[in-house]
Amino acid sequence: MRQAGRYLPEYRALRAGCPSFLAFCYSPELAAEATLQPIRRFDFDAAILFSDILVVPDALGQEVRFEAGEGPRLRPLEPDLEGLAPSLNPRKVGQVAEAAARARALLSPEKALIGFCGAPWTVASYMIGGGSSPDQQAVRLFAYRHPDAFKALIDRLVEASVAFLMAQVDAGVDVIQIFDSWAGVLPTGELRRWCVEPVGRMLQELRLRAPHVKSIVFPRGVGNRLTAYGDLPCHALGLDTAADAALAARALPSGLTLQGNLDPLALVAGGAALDEAIAQAQENFRDRAWIFNLGHGVVPETPVEHVQKLVEALRGSG
Amino acid sequence: MRQAGRYLPEYRALRAGCPSFLAFCYSPELAAEATLQPIRRFDFDAAILFSDILVVPDALGQEVRFEAGEGPRLRPLEPDLEGLAPSLNPRKVGQVAEAAARARALLSPEKALIGFCGAPWTVASYMIGGGSSPDQQAVRLFAYRHPDAFKALIDRLVEASVAFLMAQVDAGVDVIQIFDSWAGVLPTGELRRWCVEPVGRMLQELRLRAPHVKSIVFPRGVGNRLTAYGDLPCHALGLDTAADAALAARALPSGLTLQGNLDPLALVAGGAALDEAIAQAQENFRDRAWIFNLGHGVVPETPVEHVQKLVEALRGSG
Repeated sequence: MRQAGRYLPEYRALRAGCPSFLAFCYSPELAAEATLQPIRRFDFDAAILFSDILVVPDALGQEVRFEAGEGPRLRPLEPDLEGLAPSLNPRKVGQVAEAAARARALLSPEKALIGFCGAPWTVASYMIGGGSSPDQQAVRLFAYRHPDAFKALIDRLVEASVAFLMAQVDAGVDVIQIFDSWAGVLPTGELRRWCVEPVGRMLQELRLRAPHVKSIVFPRGVGNRLTAYGDLPCHALGLDTAADAALAARALPSGLTLQGNLDPLALVAGGAALDEAIAQAQENFRDRAWIFNLGHGVVPETPVEHVQKLVEALRGSG
Repeated sequence: MRQAGRYLPEYRALRAGCPSFLAFCYSPELAAEATLQPIRRFDFDAAILFSDILVVPDALGQEVRFEAGEGPRLRPLEPDLEGLAPSLNPRKVGQVAEAAARARALLSPEKALIGFCGAPWTVASYMIGGGSSPDQQAVRLFAYRHPDAFKALIDRLVEASVAFLMAQVDAGVDVIQIFDSWAGVLPTGELRRWCVEPVGRMLQELRLRAPHVKSIVFPRGVGNRLTAYGDLPCHALGLDTAADAALAARALPSGLTLQGNLDPLALVAGGAALDEAIAQAQENFRDRAWIFNLGHGVVPETPVEHVQKLVEALRGSG
């Protein structure tokens, strides 16, 4: 998950100097600084590049805007994919790669740097729907009504996303993560077609081109369909807040590392709720390789001292 | 799921005569007529009472409004539950029961009539949050911060919901269904505490008081945690669109009937997408007792002729 964010005063100060969120992501200095802020404060084991999954549609020429407090707005694509560039704008990709290179250079060698992109389905859901909605109806209907055009879009995104990740790898990231935030809205057949299969193609290509890089896939909300990801060539699978960690651990291959899944709202609440959530998280480490993480992003109203307490509790138990 | 709705011209005509949605639900004539409209048109095997899960907070004295196109708005409860009546308004419950009695009298005897209520967690999420949001943060934070007050609210809702269902049973419904639309946002420990356990208590009480009535529980979005419901004393479990029917069938006791879960958007799209979804639904019937249903409510833009086609396809294959 993104580690920097509005819950950090130093991030709010940095962002105040650059009102456009996308311009912030494309500034190597600012994005690298936002990447490192949480590491300086909390000494996490890994940093995640500060960027956004909508860099890819933006770099493919689609109009993307971030309205304050409203989430992203894109000019929705037409079924003929008219207006989409054949490949990513090299200048924009170069700026993200430079942010990664700067962050890598400033990060101490024992810390991992994680690069990322959105999964094709999730990025397409914004490109077709123009934003997010609780069940992403627009893209689901588009996929049902125009399966061939949608397949063409997914294929374009597989290619562009691999290119985007390889630019980050070449800049020095040690791990890549693929976020499929909207995988959970799909029935199982559609999930296999539009999420599991394209992400599998991306992972195969990355394994060929960057065999030293580790990979994490985070298919949010997929519930018991997490097992459909068990055979993909990735190193770790991310669990969302609502995933049952014990059931997932039993159902998935033992060689696969799992990541997750403390409720970000327990971190907001603190007190006994946080203590219980930490105890549950420690339980998860007991029997298999596990990367501690939240089950979703840090909420803006999270008290910084709760994050500090969480880190100390996990380190103390290590 | 609700069978009548804006996709039906006869429902739109009936609703046009009563601008307040709650007044419509409390009118025995109108609610009974809306209950029967889909049966007349499609000859479904069962009718579901036309009502709303927010009748319970309304009948407990909380202010509930339905704004056109905006979803419900409630005046959020305070942590002390100030202003909540100790029990349901008998006049309001009586009007819903009278709608059920009228519908039962007009329905042919071989058709089942389904009564329903919201699960305590889901109803509480509206009572605390004041409406719906993609992840119901307000109620989740409330439950973390005020677990004792929240337990008191859940207990009040268990009691009120059983009373509400018993009024429907006494009016003649043959089956009751408990909708837990927001179960899926909870981590597993919270899910057991706030959803599975209270629904289990309701079912036990109903089994004692109305042993002849069948029960269905629909915990939307719970993914692999559906197994946590496997030991509850209910007759059927409802699967949402994103549930993997085959995995659920393998993981749950063979004596439990399953219900679900055709994607309502496949029904909007029609064509090859609907044909595929129907084939999948037929697959579900093969090995165990299964009640055909959608995985979520009928979408307003659903073409009536697609519903007709679905019914014919399922009947033809029966």
